[in-house]
Amino acid sequence: MRTIRYVLIGLGNLGRRFCEVIVEKEALLRERYGLELMLVGAADSRGAAYDANRLDPARVAQIKQDGGSVADYPGVGRTGWDALALVQAVEADVLLEVSPVNLAQGAEPGLSCIRAAMQKGMHVVTPNKGPLVVAYRELHELAKANGVQLRFDGTVAGGLPAINLGARDLRGAVVQRIEAVPNLVTGYVMDMLAEGVPWDEALALARAEGVLEGDGSWDLEGWDAAAKLVILTNAVADFPATLNDVTRAGIATVGVDELVSARREGRRYRLLARAERQPDGGYALSVTPTSLPPDHPLGRLGRKQMGVVYTTDIYGVITAIIDEPNPIPSAMTMLRDVLDIYS
Amino acid sequence: MRTIRYVLIGLGNLGRRFCEVIVEKEALLRERYGLELMLVGAADSRGAAYDANRLDPARVAQIKQDGGSVADYPGVGRTGWDALALVQAVEADVLLEVSPVNLAQGAEPGLSCIRAAMQKGMHVVTPNKGPLVVAYRELHELAKANGVQLRFDGTVAGGLPAINLGARDLRGAVVQRIEAVPNLVTGYVMDMLAEGVPWDEALALARAEGVLEGDGSWDLEGWDAAAKLVILTNAVADFPATLNDVTRAGIATVGVDELVSARREGRRYRLLARAERQPDGGYALSVTPTSLPPDHPLGRLGRKQMGVVYTTDIYGVITAIIDEPNPIPSAMTMLRDVLDIYS
Repeated sequence: MRTIRYVLIGLGNLGRRFCEVIVEKEALLRERYGLELMLVGAADSRGAAYDANRLDPARVAQIKQDGGSVADYPGVGRTGWDALALVQAVEADVLLEVSPVNLAQGAEPGLSCIRAAMQKGMHVVTPNKGPLVVAYRELHELAKANGVQLRFDGTVAGGLPAINLGARDLRGAVVQRIEAVPNLVTGYVMDMLAEGVPWDEALALARAEGVLEGDGSWDLEGWDAAAKLVILTNAVADFPATLNDVTRAGIATVGVDELVSARREGRRYRLLARAERQPDGGYALSVTPTSLPPDHPLGRLGRKQMGVVYTTDIYGVITAIIDEPNPIPSAMTMLRDVLDIYS
Repeated sequence: MRTIRYVLIGLGNLGRRFCEVIVEKEALLRERYGLELMLVGAADSRGAAYDANRLDPARVAQIKQDGGSVADYPGVGRTGWDALALVQAVEADVLLEVSPVNLAQGAEPGLSCIRAAMQKGMHVVTPNKGPLVVAYRELHELAKANGVQLRFDGTVAGGLPAINLGARDLRGAVVQRIEAVPNLVTGYVMDMLAEGVPWDEALALARAEGVLEGDGSWDLEGWDAAAKLVILTNAVADFPATLNDVTRAGIATVGVDELVSARREGRRYRLLARAERQPDGGYALSVTPTSLPPDHPLGRLGRKQMGVVYTTDIYGVITAIIDEPNPIPSAMTMLRDVLDIYS
């Protein structure tokens, strides 16, 4: 039996779900992999808790469910102790970094936490796009220099192993094209608009459905898809794309009339992220609302489905789609990544 | 630069294609992975060739293209030298085993070659179902005991990384259901029959299209799908299923009238391989012609498409589909597997 001590930064939707589900997996992890995952530190925006002998994930989840902060954790919670200070203070094997990202305001606190963890020899698992978009190469070099692993399968398309499939199973190929519908909210809103639901109501429905958080502009204007495309292009095509390289159009650039008539003709609009290999070996990146016919590999995605298509020279055209009825798959990419490191 | 010496057993459709394509990949493998793959031995049913200084894969491919045997390889080819003797004689790092399989006659020569290679410390890569179906556990234990790797991503659904995705990216999950359309020929023939083409003509078309080899009974009676399902269930659900556990019905168990009327109603028949988790933790395995509605994840597979669906407790429902217009992706799973070992 091997004990893996982990620190969890960020206890929003994904962090809390992870805590809820991981307790149900204890027996399976012991039996199947000989592993015990032990939460020793956790932080949210209000504070942190650290106990070298173990924090109870179920208790952390319950505190968050009740609207509290992990700073309230009995005995070891501290208000105002921030995520970076926690990472610097703990002794642990792996950091799970899932703090909220608002790229308009930089990639903090995630980026600093990831750097600090790697510098002290911790592996890093993160479904947080921000740090990867801002510092993809730097973080990979830092991981290499410190002999640790950096895993980020959850950054793109929720629980779909889009990164893993692309980066590992396409080795040896030239990736000619990447196409992705890497989030739920844009398709959801466009489907609503196509059905005649007014914009504000469509957003309210998306929020009620749990696929829209915040004011939605990050997603609806295509930034989220662009960030994910940048990560995919780096990880899968090994091309150092940045956010500035993405030609981007949000969903509001398509008229409602066009959405309605496409629907009538059996086509479905999705905010398609696309990287296309150029004759010079580079890639042209775009995010744009695209009318997909039913025979496109992503042309029949439902409202809780995301997907990716890789067109390659030697492995044909490979499509992967996830049906993700709730955020648990997105949260549990952190387990997938941890097990990828340790089993 | 690291040189990997490999031996290739089997120079049929896949082995020959591998030789053709691998020469085009030399520069990429050097630049991207710092690897040189060096063919040192090759065998077909008539003989073998061995040169510790390198055989030329392009030359091997040409000899086969011209209808010859690798025994004719200038200088180092030997008629009657069999695959097992070659494996025992060579010094090499990895065995690529892709000899033809006819399970009715056992899993030879593949099984003996794989055992011999592992016993002398070679890694093994094989898209050959036979040895895995006959001796899944034994071969995995032998690999472990000898500290070598056994990779077989190409055994199921051609170039689709169905095994890799299931075995690696579903770690930590309980797999509730596996559904697969793991070969092309059965869907191809059923589509033809549904379009009113007579049985013999449908088979002739499938043969002309390159999706049917031999007399087809192995595929059409569901043995091929059953073998692949057994491997999937072992690799992905970690359940020791065997061929005897599969309830199997071939495509001829569906009447042509039914195929035609399903097509008329917008449904598509596929020979569906399915493993369903049971209350006791075991799996019920079946291969049966199944009428799939268009909204089933595999309900719109084209004639050159294969796919797999994994229904899990924590990663949602994940579907992967390959569009494989020719056998190159199936052949190049051997490159994927080699790079999985060495990069």
